[in-house]
Amino acid sequence: MERTKIVDVLQRTDYGTVVNVKGWVRTRRGSKAVNFIALNDGSTIKNIQIVVDVEKFDDAIIKDITTGACISVDGELVQSQGKGQSVELQCRNIEILGVCGADYPLQKKGHTMEFLREHANLRMRTNTFGAVFRIRHNMAMAIHCYFHEHGFFYLNTPIITASDCEGAGQMFQVTTKNLYDLKKDEDGKIDYSDDFFGKQASLTVSGQLEGELGATALGAIYTFGPTFRAENSNTPRHLAEFWMIEPEVAFNDITDNMNLAEDFIKYCIRWALDNCADDLEFLNQFVDKQLIERLHFVLEHDFVRLAYTEGIKILEEAVQNGHKFEFPVYWGADLASEHERYLVEQHFKRPVILTDYPKEIKAFYMKMNDDNKTVRAMDVLFPQIGEIIGGSEREADYDKLMGRIEELNIPMKDMWWYLETRKWGSCPHSGFGLGFERLILFVTGMQNIRDVIPFPRTPKNAEF
Amino acid sequence: MERTKIVDVLQRTDYGTVVNVKGWVRTRRGSKAVNFIALNDGSTIKNIQIVVDVEKFDDAIIKDITTGACISVDGELVQSQGKGQSVELQCRNIEILGVCGADYPLQKKGHTMEFLREHANLRMRTNTFGAVFRIRHNMAMAIHCYFHEHGFFYLNTPIITASDCEGAGQMFQVTTKNLYDLKKDEDGKIDYSDDFFGKQASLTVSGQLEGELGATALGAIYTFGPTFRAENSNTPRHLAEFWMIEPEVAFNDITDNMNLAEDFIKYCIRWALDNCADDLEFLNQFVDKQLIERLHFVLEHDFVRLAYTEGIKILEEAVQNGHKFEFPVYWGADLASEHERYLVEQHFKRPVILTDYPKEIKAFYMKMNDDNKTVRAMDVLFPQIGEIIGGSEREADYDKLMGRIEELNIPMKDMWWYLETRKWGSCPHSGFGLGFERLILFVTGMQNIRDVIPFPRTPKNAEF
Repeated sequence: MERTKIVDVLQRTDYGTVVNVKGWVRTRRGSKAVNFIALNDGSTIKNIQIVVDVEKFDDAIIKDITTGACISVDGELVQSQGKGQSVELQCRNIEILGVCGADYPLQKKGHTMEFLREHANLRMRTNTFGAVFRIRHNMAMAIHCYFHEHGFFYLNTPIITASDCEGAGQMFQVTTKNLYDLKKDEDGKIDYSDDFFGKQASLTVSGQLEGELGATALGAIYTFGPTFRAENSNTPRHLAEFWMIEPEVAFNDITDNMNLAEDFIKYCIRWALDNCADDLEFLNQFVDKQLIERLHFVLEHDFVRLAYTEGIKILEEAVQNGHKFEFPVYWGADLASEHERYLVEQHFKRPVILTDYPKEIKAFYMKMNDDNKTVRAMDVLFPQIGEIIGGSEREADYDKLMGRIEELNIPMKDMWWYLETRKWGSCPHSGFGLGFERLILFVTGMQNIRDVIPFPRTPKNAEF
Repeated sequence: MERTKIVDVLQRTDYGTVVNVKGWVRTRRGSKAVNFIALNDGSTIKNIQIVVDVEKFDDAIIKDITTGACISVDGELVQSQGKGQSVELQCRNIEILGVCGADYPLQKKGHTMEFLREHANLRMRTNTFGAVFRIRHNMAMAIHCYFHEHGFFYLNTPIITASDCEGAGQMFQVTTKNLYDLKKDEDGKIDYSDDFFGKQASLTVSGQLEGELGATALGAIYTFGPTFRAENSNTPRHLAEFWMIEPEVAFNDITDNMNLAEDFIKYCIRWALDNCADDLEFLNQFVDKQLIERLHFVLEHDFVRLAYTEGIKILEEAVQNGHKFEFPVYWGADLASEHERYLVEQHFKRPVILTDYPKEIKAFYMKMNDDNKTVRAMDVLFPQIGEIIGGSEREADYDKLMGRIEELNIPMKDMWWYLETRKWGSCPHSGFGLGFERLILFVTGMQNIRDVIPFPRTPKNAEF
């Protein structure tokens, strides 16, 4: 008999039909006469209840139906008598596909998040992580669908790179050199001519620069791939390996860029509410009681758009009125998460797009404003999360861009390919980056970024 | 005036309306009185023709409308007089956004593929590469849509890994160690305890093993991410960095796996024919005259399903009948591309799924057949390409799997997390891997894998 997924069985009302389901036992309970098996196959957070007339089955089979065991069940679809589900299966036949001993780590009792991280090979079998990773899938789909519907092309920018000009953070070195026999030149410098790529190579920190090449050819592109930071940050907000989405659009100015960011992120959140109701309800009940309310709240409000300079004034007023921040507030300061969250959660009580930051705290490629002090940067600030998106209009003028590069002493020797976009047929263009795991944190209500990526990479941890 | 994309303008018939388009000049030709500009914005392979009444514009502006220049044009939509397009724009206003000098490498004349690879930062602006990368985007969309519609969840398996058991090829090492001051232990071995992850780490060669963790929790998953091989292979078929799609499904046996592979790849090809007609027609005309015919051919035929042993018999008969192969044919031999293509292109004249390979030439995790000589492997063989998909039913039995691991001396010290799937609630499951760039080669008719990924990484080359 062909297997039916539990998500589909739960929708059916053709009572009397015999169906086959396969999955993993969550619990078995009941009396000597009747047992109730809660079976889950990962297709939905909901279990199907299987009613077993115990005397019709071998003791040996019943004994093997333990938490974690994998079974195949033929059963008749019946209207459920108990509450909590509409249909259940009256068991006709059971086959044990894989037993599960009492040493199985995921027994019924609750586990700490830290315990589950140590068992990340199994944690996707729990309700919480099943919900998180089904939602993660849905957010990836939402992202691809949004950009496809809006005429963007998905661009795979390189993971291994020989450029390191962006300075977005410490990089991982990638090499095939024999570390036991490192060839050096006469000055004692390591000779990379015999390394795989013939020069020193690293893992990318951003696909933006290559994304700009795509945008100035195909018009509108987006990247969606892994990026890396070799920073020794052991916090609930940092990963050494994370996924990033970076749209880049020819002819968009900073206002178009803000419109795109707001429309895009609302589309993703709406997708979650429309497509992940069961998983969101579970998370709302057991992880974060304000989750669904917060998602609706973001959808229903226009984001505040505010210049950095105005934001600093608001924060300075807050300080004058007695609000204590850990880090100082002054024009020119890089905002800390506490400042961003004050603006969002306490002052405006809605998402904020902060623009026109001092050039000193932003990257070299951002378009200079006429004041020659601020650049056309934009950060989208969210409740709970702080910065969820960072972007800018790019400097399209070759001379101004070169001026900034020289001012900042950026090593551009390998960057001829980027500068050529400003040399031949340069155009205004804008883009931004969204950290995928930050979006998942927001949409699931989870607190630690290690719990929204299947196998997190952090300092001293590359397990699984 | 708001910009309209050229792909949309070309669909319009509201003659008389004034629209704004922005893009890059492909050519400007004409007389002293009337000029014709072919403008492209990357949204489609088609250009919009702009008719310029020369005397109405400054000489300086006309002079700057050179190949590669970026311009903004307001023009009245009119029915085209010439052939090759249905609508054109009668120019009202032109703004030069970015000039383009005569030193621009992509002048009108044809370029060699090698020349364009050296200018990969600009090559997406050409017709051929625009077509290839729009199709690449569409194939990524098709893949995500197929799996989403079929209840699979997208799983991001790790890029950096500390396991190296699969032995699928040479790996790149990832490190933050100071190579000028490598700490060694008393035996002279490099001490990785102070490396970022506290042990030696590499770039992944496959997400399959982690994918199996996902499938045995969420039921059906797929990966779609970059994978790496540090092999010194300078061929038109090899990349050091490429993208791979790996579905993995609980409860699927080898037949389900074959059905999935055939249905999936036909869905992708149908998507290309349905959504990329203009780009495919261009490639069919200028790159590969059999391209569209070949795509239809694959769609219209059931794939032949054949045991390896039967395949060898056919090849041996061919040899007896005088066919010359470079590599020898015998039971136990790993098939070369020439053998695969003989079966597909000359013998069966359609795609072939070859199954039940000798265990010696396949990976340790494949399910053993009852003959104890062959395993439930499957390779999908395509015309032009050879192997496009490789997969198998996995060994679900803990003892049998451990037996193979010991037989093959596979270093499993870090693999406890994988083996636990067979220990607790083990289930039959199957999966396969599709090299994304091989699919793009097939769907575009391009000949060199370096021309179907934006920025190829190959030995001695990590440019851009």
